[in-house]
Amino acid sequence: MEAQQLVLLAGRLAAAEISAEEFLTQAAKLTDQSEIATVDLDRAERCGFPEVIFGTGKSAETVIEIAGRLLAHDQHVLATRIEAEKAKQVLERLSDARYNPVARTIRIDANPRGPEVGHVAVITAGTSDLPVAEEARETLAWMGVRATMVHDVGVAGPHRLPERLAEFRDTDAIVVVAGMEGALPSVVGGYVPCPVFAVPTSVGYGANLGGLSALLAMLNSCASNVAVVNIDAGFKAGYLAGLVATRRGTV
Amino acid sequence: MEAQQLVLLAGRLAAAEISAEEFLTQAAKLTDQSEIATVDLDRAERCGFPEVIFGTGKSAETVIEIAGRLLAHDQHVLATRIEAEKAKQVLERLSDARYNPVARTIRIDANPRGPEVGHVAVITAGTSDLPVAEEARETLAWMGVRATMVHDVGVAGPHRLPERLAEFRDTDAIVVVAGMEGALPSVVGGYVPCPVFAVPTSVGYGANLGGLSALLAMLNSCASNVAVVNIDAGFKAGYLAGLVATRRGTV
Amino acid sequence: MEAQQLVLLAGRLAAAEISAEEFLTQAAKLTDQSEIATVDLDRAERCGFPEVIFGTGKSAETVIEIAGRLLAHDQHVLATRIEAEKAKQVLERLSDARYNPVARTIRIDANPRGPEVGHVAVITAGTSDLPVAEEARETLAWMGVRATMVHDVGVAGPHRLPERLAEFRDTDAIVVVAGMEGALPSVVGGYVPCPVFAVPTSVGYGANLGGLSALLAMLNSCASNVAVVNIDAGFKAGYLAGLVATRRGTV
Amino acid sequence: MEAQQLVLLAGRLAAAEISAEEFLTQAAKLTDQSEIATVDLDRAERCGFPEVIFGTGKSAETVIEIAGRLLAHDQHVLATRIEAEKAKQVLERLSDARYNPVARTIRIDANPRGPEVGHVAVITAGTSDLPVAEEARETLAWMGVRATMVHDVGVAGPHRLPERLAEFRDTDAIVVVAGMEGALPSVVGGYVPCPVFAVPTSVGYGANLGGLSALLAMLNSCASNVAVVNIDAGFKAGYLAGLVATRRGTV
Amino acid sequence: MEAQQLVLLAGRLAAAEISAEEFLTQAAKLTDQSEIATVDLDRAERCGFPEVIFGTGKSAETVIEIAGRLLAHDQHVLATRIEAEKAKQVLERLSDARYNPVARTIRIDANPRGPEVGHVAVITAGTSDLPVAEEARETLAWMGVRATMVHDVGVAGPHRLPERLAEFRDTDAIVVVAGMEGALPSVVGGYVPCPVFAVPTSVGYGANLGGLSALLAMLNSCASNVAVVNIDAGFKAGYLAGLVATRRGTV
Amino acid sequence: MEAQQLVLLAGRLAAAEISAEEFLTQAAKLTDQSEIATVDLDRAERCGFPEVIFGTGKSAETVIEIAGRLLAHDQHVLATRIEAEKAKQVLERLSDARYNPVARTIRIDANPRGPEVGHVAVITAGTSDLPVAEEARETLAWMGVRATMVHDVGVAGPHRLPERLAEFRDTDAIVVVAGMEGALPSVVGGYVPCPVFAVPTSVGYGANLGGLSALLAMLNSCASNVAVVNIDAGFKAGYLAGLVATRRGTV
Amino acid sequence: MEAQQLVLLAGRLAAAEISAEEFLTQAAKLTDQSEIATVDLDRAERCGFPEVIFGTGKSAETVIEIAGRLLAHDQHVLATRIEAEKAKQVLERLSDARYNPVARTIRIDANPRGPEVGHVAVITAGTSDLPVAEEARETLAWMGVRATMVHDVGVAGPHRLPERLAEFRDTDAIVVVAGMEGALPSVVGGYVPCPVFAVPTSVGYGANLGGLSALLAMLNSCASNVAVVNIDAGFKAGYLAGLVATRRGTV
Amino acid sequence: MEAQQLVLLAGRLAAAEISAEEFLTQAAKLTDQSEIATVDLDRAERCGFPEVIFGTGKSAETVIEIAGRLLAHDQHVLATRIEAEKAKQVLERLSDARYNPVARTIRIDANPRGPEVGHVAVITAGTSDLPVAEEARETLAWMGVRATMVHDVGVAGPHRLPERLAEFRDTDAIVVVAGMEGALPSVVGGYVPCPVFAVPTSVGYGANLGGLSALLAMLNSCASNVAVVNIDAGFKAGYLAGLVATRRGTV
Repeated sequence: MEAQQLVLLAGRLAAAEISAEEFLTQAAKLTDQSEIATVDLDRAERCGFPEVIFGTGKSAETVIEIAGRLLAHDQHVLATRIEAEKAKQVLERLSDARYNPVARTIRIDANPRGPEVGHVAVITAGTSDLPVAEEARETLAWMGVRATMVHDVGVAGPHRLPERLAEFRDTDAIVVVAGMEGALPSVVGGYVPCPVFAVPTSVGYGANLGGLSALLAMLNSCASNVAVVNIDAGFKAGYLAGLVATRRGTV
Repeated sequence: MEAQQLVLLAGRLAAAEISAEEFLTQAAKLTDQSEIATVDLDRAERCGFPEVIFGTGKSAETVIEIAGRLLAHDQHVLATRIEAEKAKQVLERLSDARYNPVARTIRIDANPRGPEVGHVAVITAGTSDLPVAEEARETLAWMGVRATMVHDVGVAGPHRLPERLAEFRDTDAIVVVAGMEGALPSVVGGYVPCPVFAVPTSVGYGANLGGLSALLAMLNSCASNVAVVNIDAGFKAGYLAGLVATRRGTV
Repeated sequence: MEAQQLVLLAGRLAAAEISAEEFLTQAAKLTDQSEIATVDLDRAERCGFPEVIFGTGKSAETVIEIAGRLLAHDQHVLATRIEAEKAKQVLERLSDARYNPVARTIRIDANPRGPEVGHVAVITAGTSDLPVAEEARETLAWMGVRATMVHDVGVAGPHRLPERLAEFRDTDAIVVVAGMEGALPSVVGGYVPCPVFAVPTSVGYGANLGGLSALLAMLNSCASNVAVVNIDAGFKAGYLAGLVATRRGTV
Repeated sequence: MEAQQLVLLAGRLAAAEISAEEFLTQAAKLTDQSEIATVDLDRAERCGFPEVIFGTGKSAETVIEIAGRLLAHDQHVLATRIEAEKAKQVLERLSDARYNPVARTIRIDANPRGPEVGHVAVITAGTSDLPVAEEARETLAWMGVRATMVHDVGVAGPHRLPERLAEFRDTDAIVVVAGMEGALPSVVGGYVPCPVFAVPTSVGYGANLGGLSALLAMLNSCASNVAVVNIDAGFKAGYLAGLVATRRGTV
Repeated sequence: MEAQQLVLLAGRLAAAEISAEEFLTQAAKLTDQSEIATVDLDRAERCGFPEVIFGTGKSAETVIEIAGRLLAHDQHVLATRIEAEKAKQVLERLSDARYNPVARTIRIDANPRGPEVGHVAVITAGTSDLPVAEEARETLAWMGVRATMVHDVGVAGPHRLPERLAEFRDTDAIVVVAGMEGALPSVVGGYVPCPVFAVPTSVGYGANLGGLSALLAMLNSCASNVAVVNIDAGFKAGYLAGLVATRRGTV
Repeated sequence: MEAQQLVLLAGRLAAAEISAEEFLTQAAKLTDQSEIATVDLDRAERCGFPEVIFGTGKSAETVIEIAGRLLAHDQHVLATRIEAEKAKQVLERLSDARYNPVARTIRIDANPRGPEVGHVAVITAGTSDLPVAEEARETLAWMGVRATMVHDVGVAGPHRLPERLAEFRDTDAIVVVAGMEGALPSVVGGYVPCPVFAVPTSVGYGANLGGLSALLAMLNSCASNVAVVNIDAGFKAGYLAGLVATRRGTV
Repeated sequence: MEAQQLVLLAGRLAAAEISAEEFLTQAAKLTDQSEIATVDLDRAERCGFPEVIFGTGKSAETVIEIAGRLLAHDQHVLATRIEAEKAKQVLERLSDARYNPVARTIRIDANPRGPEVGHVAVITAGTSDLPVAEEARETLAWMGVRATMVHDVGVAGPHRLPERLAEFRDTDAIVVVAGMEGALPSVVGGYVPCPVFAVPTSVGYGANLGGLSALLAMLNSCASNVAVVNIDAGFKAGYLAGLVATRRGTV
Repeated sequence: MEAQQLVLLAGRLAAAEISAEEFLTQAAKLTDQSEIATVDLDRAERCGFPEVIFGTGKSAETVIEIAGRLLAHDQHVLATRIEAEKAKQVLERLSDARYNPVARTIRIDANPRGPEVGHVAVITAGTSDLPVAEEARETLAWMGVRATMVHDVGVAGPHRLPERLAEFRDTDAIVVVAGMEGALPSVVGGYVPCPVFAVPTSVGYGANLGGLSALLAMLNSCASNVAVVNIDAGFKAGYLAGLVATRRGTV
């Protein structure tokens, strides 16, 4: 960080030559230099998939730069938690980028992809869980895994469930996204032979404690095949399911 | 979801043909397709009353569509947690809808109703608990149950209470709505022979922990006839009281 | 409390005339005088059922005395949370008392009972939830309500559930007892038209937080007809279900 | 601490000359030397009342020594949280000591007392709250304040309350001791013009969270004249009430 | 509530005759009818001081009406938690009202007051605790009690403290307002013979948990004369201190 | 439950014909009848592996009976959370049972097994995490999966880690067991391309909150391939890893 | 505070002579008088460094005044938590002030400084931790200590770490700033011989609980040389590291 | 672990050839093989001091073996959390070992030590904090640092403090050990220029939450020079203070 430049900038702010907003924008640029964010380019080698860009707190500039470096190394790009306004700036610069405004993700393929492999189901308890489910779906798409979405399968409407689960007995893994009481993963887990990755969401009110109630319920699931990720962590659940799917059949 | 269409939309955003706001509105429409929300039409058969529309996170479009389907099956409509702006859009399309801005509910009768049955009292500890109490009252109206409201009965003004409770010895159930220390259900429960459904509210400050303190107090009530629902869950308490009232005398 | 007597007693302890244990026993008797516990004899009139004896922290003497007073007024006796050793002392003195060692309850009928009324189902998620369910069952027996027990209905073995729930569509109320993720009440609630009283239990380990996780899940239930009581509060859930059952058909 | 002596002692333990128990007893004596606990003898001057001995973690030896120093300065002694076995040892050495086994307190008067001053009521919600109430009563006796005890005044038996509170309109302060939902202080507070010191107790189960639920309820009391102390802190509530009582009329 | 009128109003909203904002304002008026808030006029008789208006969630209209009724019965008015905009509306209608924008309180004297009685000190740990301290001060003024303010007495600058506390050895009670680690009441309590009413504030960041850390510290104070009230409850601490001050010398 | 028999039994207790202990033992037998625990025999068909016996709260009798039924259907037996004393009783009756006293598990093979499949690594942070790791290992053995144990790999001794992780790049999944700060799964996750199932343990003291601190850390892991299970849930992590291992190569 | 003036001001507001905003500004000035904030000028003498201005809740006026007094006594100024808009006002008046908009700090040197002493490394886990790290760096600069920044050293990219830590074996202390799982201090602590001051940040989402998860992890660190400060407390960690650095070599 | 041997052992248990206790002892030996615990022998090189043995969950055998290996490499031994019975076994085998039963530590010097260096003060708030303070003192002795103990310095007896702190202005660091409200580190921090390492203890009751209240207070300390370690972590605070002391003067 160039302290010198910041001092100059602060002087211009003091002299009313620039507005407070301009000041902050300029200062952010000065301090958001590319060497601050290190791109882990051998991650694809080490872990099977490239680094993913977690958008929170990163400027459009930074997202574009990291994406550029990944593409330069022939690595597919996935950026999560990108708000619409920031996405717009990225799309203006990277013409191949595709934005999913529900998932708040950007994907850019480094090169043409082959056919999808494996099969993961993503199941939501209610329509409000959709953004998290979409983030999981985009993650699977980025990994090249086929995903099937099943929406609005509340445990309190249980007659809907068995008819749908029959289709998913052969999926590689299932992502279950649920808020409120977080009971859906337990019910799904009891019907299927594959790993279930449960994502608690902050959907609900009052004693849902911002998703903690659903999280705790999922951790206490009486179904043996349920693993849990952080609240609203659609990416992580999708990634884990995708790992299982892409590695199955690769022994 | 039509990924194709979203890509096109994102392109128009990038080309500045549409604003970010328009973009989000359009995208939401694309992804909020009716098949995402499944209407549980045989719920009335299975559970005695139709599905209720929980408004949080649903667009006016979705509310209107679900309401339409319910009405088409001769089922009375109740929608909760509908903000005024969204309500206005619904009312423009569904002329029989009645909005209660305090309760934030919409009701639409599918056909003329007979006389009300049963009797439930809804009691609040303070004037700030009114919105939750009104949600309970609207729920009871939707179920066809007679409701009597009693407001501002603080436990620290206890001389007011016995005179009022005498009237309610024969009600089918009582809904008690209270924030702060959540003591009112215990006091009411000690005077009456019917079930008391206690609703903690987020009213208060500091160590009220957003309603958790009242919730915990109610769960620890020394009165045997007090059951508890989620914080601010006026609908649920009204529904439970209504179930008791409508089923009484139906053996 | 007779301070004078306590001082004498302490003197004897100091003089080694009595052991520390004897001392405590005597002191407890001195301070556990009958006027300390007030029996609420008009509770049956006011609330429909007599006072129940909560055994925790009460000596066998106190339990016997309160039971005696209730029987003297022709009121059926129910005492909860009575450990086996204390129960033995009570049974030696009150020959009609019946002890349920799983529920840890004592019941004594004041006079011959008529036939049972109503019908309540008590459903447990696992065998470890049995003590709490038995406490609910004993409470219903004391109220004169017919109870049917269904055990070990885990949500992760969901194929078992629908076949059983069909039988309970006409019960007056259902008590669901569950620990771990506390999902069973939500699933049951979606199949039946009556109120469901959910009892979280402390069954589980780790992040079950002594039953708090199940409690939170139940409070956030997406089923509208689920009310919640305190952790392990089998008595309270039984009492509420019994109230609904005994009052149904009494309008 | 004499490290030298501890080393010797450990040597004897290693040589099996003494048992592990003897070892610990000896070691404790070595490290529990009187200079470790400093007696605040001018506290009576500064704060109006002498230092009180908090018994937890102190040996009988230490209690006896501090008591001796206080008595040597003509200061009345109060020791709290003294278990029966430890009390016995103290009473063997200090013949004027009086032990209250319910309150678990020891009191020794340094010199003859004059008549009691002021008037404080100590009210409990249930019989299990008795030990905490007794600790408050002993504290008031040590301060020379008249105390009246009222037991088992549950908020769910509210008809009992007003008849009793009428007697206490002129008390200097009221101590209210309650577990479970902790609602009693709010109800009492609404009837009286004096300060109410509320003591939450750990009485209850499940979601009482060891007394936290009652504590939170009391902090959120809608009665303006309710102040709160720590869970089970009978001494502190008694002390505060006693301060108000002894200072009243002393301007 | 006039459901009829609300329906009409909703119709006008639907017809775009009124804006959503107007709609809400009108609806609020309809539902905020004076009979909803019951004024406890005999509270002054029962508890020594009149009812206080807790402003949160009350409209200016309601504040004005309750104030009017109190004044009509010759009772001094205190309203707390009144934001500046609402205060302006009240002051336009009630010319004798005095607003303290830091404390966010309004006071109106019903008739000329005599000289102040008693003496209470209000001490703050930092300048950010000022609003809470001012609320306590206004409460004391409304009760007719003399108050002395001492500001910015951090425990980490402890040399400042003793010199100030010497002045307060004869006060009737002390209110201590502190956020962050909440240590000040313990330190003050060790120097003075009167009751200390501790108010935790939400001042701080991170692990201050919105004031819970300070609250817990104060409840665990090793000083015997410290009682605690809710987070930011300046009114309650002032009221309790005022009760002690006004009743001292009145035996 | 045979209420009749319990009454008789209680009578014998009252008559001092049996001791309280005998009474409880007999009563437990009466109430622990085999129909209470339902064995889910088609679970192997539905979920790939048979039901596992969770030993907590089950008598040796019950464990033996369920094991018998599973063996009669040619299903391998795994029982977890079996204390040594109970294990002894089971081993006396089922001669093929093998008990692991560290893992507290019993395994019985229904028939000869083929060679192990797949490969899972189980890594512990410290020696105190061993029991949980052993439970995972026994689970993998029961599933027929090869397991490699790596012990005592603290993150504060990080030079040990990379040398070991190189061996595990081709494992199907890794189970990481860690208490205290729960950092090990994040570090491991960054080196390997397979799913990591993290098990927080209750190892530690003070602010470890019985394992909650490690649990929270693992949920917040910055490594994308880390999924989490309940505190001390060695079985669940082993089961999930085993599912991934046995299904890999089975497409 | 001049109550008189506030009353006048409120009158002007009531008379609509001033706007509500003006009213608040004026009122704030009246109550923010300089005697409220006491400057601890002998702190430099007592503690080695002057008082630091904690900006939250202080007006620009107050910051300028305290800064002025410090400078008048030849003490270097550091102000933290200063938002850009407030900083602008300060810089207009104090021309030597330097603002760091990322750290949100202002520094003013009272007189020319000599060369920097000691050496502290400040390490961040991710780019979002930068503001907290910058606050630590500014604090070190104010103390005259040399600081080296190392950014974006995630534990999940562990191959980056050892190469960097080798440089820091001789630093006097290390500040580690990390959110999410808070694992970095443990890993760093295992490589270095100096004290590590760990700062948890609120970076993350869901179960990060606003930084509590990272805080708990750091407190449970298995590395012996890790001490912890409050969430986001960059100043405090910088100050502690600076104390160690400036005092080293001064015996 | 030798599964073979465990199976044999279980067979002997089943055959009643060995008792359950013998079985567990033998099994523990089999699984507690020395290769499970890895001794980090180059830690002294890397971090300045050797590995410390954390006794919890380690058998006397394991402690003796690790100690032996450290001594063989000329490294001083410190073992913490060693109960008396286990200590006795260690002392029987390692004749130079010194056990401190209050601190529950064992120390063994590998070779004669030179004079102590540096100076650290260890201050406790009450006598119950002594065990934690002793653990810190033993740690400092093991590091070769001079320690001065100051006991029973409660913040509510503040007149005692300044006279003592004057002596410690030149110490290298101060360890402050306090339970209850945890205020002492803030008060001490305001008087001294060196780093203060604060150790919260679990001393207290009720809302002390097992030490969490003191921990939170210390984290929110308004004194800039206070760093915090885990609850009851006397070793860690001693180690950090010792690091500062031994490195001071070594630049």
